[in-house]
Amino acid sequence: MSDSKTNGRNRPVAVFDSGLGGLTVTRALASLLPRENIIYFGDTARVPYGTKSERTIRRYAVEDVNFVLRFEPKLIVVACNTVSAIAMDHLRQTFRVPLIGVVEPGARAAVSATRRKRVGIIGTEATIASGAYQRAIRDLDSGIEILALSTPLLVPITEEGRDCNDVVVKAALKGYLAPLKDAGGDALVLGCTHYPLLKDALKNEMGDDVTVVDSAEETATEVRRFLDEKDMLCETPSFPQYRFFVSDSSQRFLSIGRRFFGADLVNVREISPDEFFFAK
Amino acid sequence: MSDSKTNGRNRPVAVFDSGLGGLTVTRALASLLPRENIIYFGDTARVPYGTKSERTIRRYAVEDVNFVLRFEPKLIVVACNTVSAIAMDHLRQTFRVPLIGVVEPGARAAVSATRRKRVGIIGTEATIASGAYQRAIRDLDSGIEILALSTPLLVPITEEGRDCNDVVVKAALKGYLAPLKDAGGDALVLGCTHYPLLKDALKNEMGDDVTVVDSAEETATEVRRFLDEKDMLCETPSFPQYRFFVSDSSQRFLSIGRRFFGADLVNVREISPDEFFFAK
Repeated sequence: MSDSKTNGRNRPVAVFDSGLGGLTVTRALASLLPRENIIYFGDTARVPYGTKSERTIRRYAVEDVNFVLRFEPKLIVVACNTVSAIAMDHLRQTFRVPLIGVVEPGARAAVSATRRKRVGIIGTEATIASGAYQRAIRDLDSGIEILALSTPLLVPITEEGRDCNDVVVKAALKGYLAPLKDAGGDALVLGCTHYPLLKDALKNEMGDDVTVVDSAEETATEVRRFLDEKDMLCETPSFPQYRFFVSDSSQRFLSIGRRFFGADLVNVREISPDEFFFAK
Repeated sequence: MSDSKTNGRNRPVAVFDSGLGGLTVTRALASLLPRENIIYFGDTARVPYGTKSERTIRRYAVEDVNFVLRFEPKLIVVACNTVSAIAMDHLRQTFRVPLIGVVEPGARAAVSATRRKRVGIIGTEATIASGAYQRAIRDLDSGIEILALSTPLLVPITEEGRDCNDVVVKAALKGYLAPLKDAGGDALVLGCTHYPLLKDALKNEMGDDVTVVDSAEETATEVRRFLDEKDMLCETPSFPQYRFFVSDSSQRFLSIGRRFFGADLVNVREISPDEFFFAK
């Protein structure tokens, strides 16, 4: 095996997100691909993206990719649902590095899961307004009815640390999900990286016959399939290296991110604006 | 009267905020000082500030002031509670233009209002953690007991358009305000520009014997007092000119901001990153 091939395999997988939500995707990746080295970047100085315009989201996404490219990743995972929904085509036109987003894996899993052909999607304002999940599902099965709901409170609710029994969580979910229950949907796509933390409450609200699709897990499966097909799975026998970068205040990232990653975050560095916004 | 004096009087008042919340302050200004020309800037590309670090908030605040300075304002109103709490000293050291923030007027009104000398403050994570309201109140009366509570859901709740009878609003307020009710507080400072939209629900939750202090109104009163003292009130007899600038997507600003301003927003312009981030 040539050196370049070996080096290629052992290059890191890069993951980026608007903030700390992408840590749920990173957690799923680390669980499914425990040998891979991972670089994570969270744009915590400008989070959230989900309330911003398409043009601004595309600009931020290009800057995020430019930042992680300096680590020469073999693959970039666009963990942010908002970026995946709005900027994937733009990123694929702009960069040559392989890019995997969270929308297509989530859409595929939802199409597999629904028996009544009625699928619900919850996400940020920008994700839902983009229609990306809706298009991805219809491309796979045009006969599926789709109900897409923007649920803006669920990000701050999870960051605040409210648990699944919290009265505010229950009241918010009851209101948000009523149209999907009324419509008889039997699959619900979690179209935002924060929502896996509310999975139990979502399952409780929707009932046992509804499949909750976790885009984070589906995306990790897609990453493994891609690396396996390309013969690019990491072969280093040692422990993998994880490095985390944020554009603002690693303190909040550490304290809240811990719950999202499911373990303490080490190797976290706050980068200066000069290192990031003017990255080439 | 000299020309320069006349011109000075008729220069605009500039107002800036992390996003659209500062429109409640602008509304109070427009109501109290109907002759003044107003320039508004909302940094909607990077909103919110309340979850970000002090260093980043100071950097953003300097960029915001640099942007509005091009309109040669006679006074700059720092409508953002987070910036007022964290960056006022830094801004006053950096710029010579008169600056009025929202913390001191709110603190003063709370000290006047409380009879039991027990004051509550609600605000963003950064505002509460900064201790700025707490210091401002203690500087005026060191005998006042203060309970400062961060209430992160209230910004997305108001932006989502939930009204004061909404079940999620009621549940969130009940939980947030319980410690203040238990402590017997009789004045509550709204330490965030969004909260005036929830004033009725806050009053309902707290009861009739609690005075709700609206920093927006107190700040407008402070601006009038300052301009009057300096003999700088606008004397133009014609209708005033309002101009609004945002760093991202005027669409969301228009649709949500309308409720905050209490009228349709006209003369709104989205500025490009080059015009703003590299402003001198």
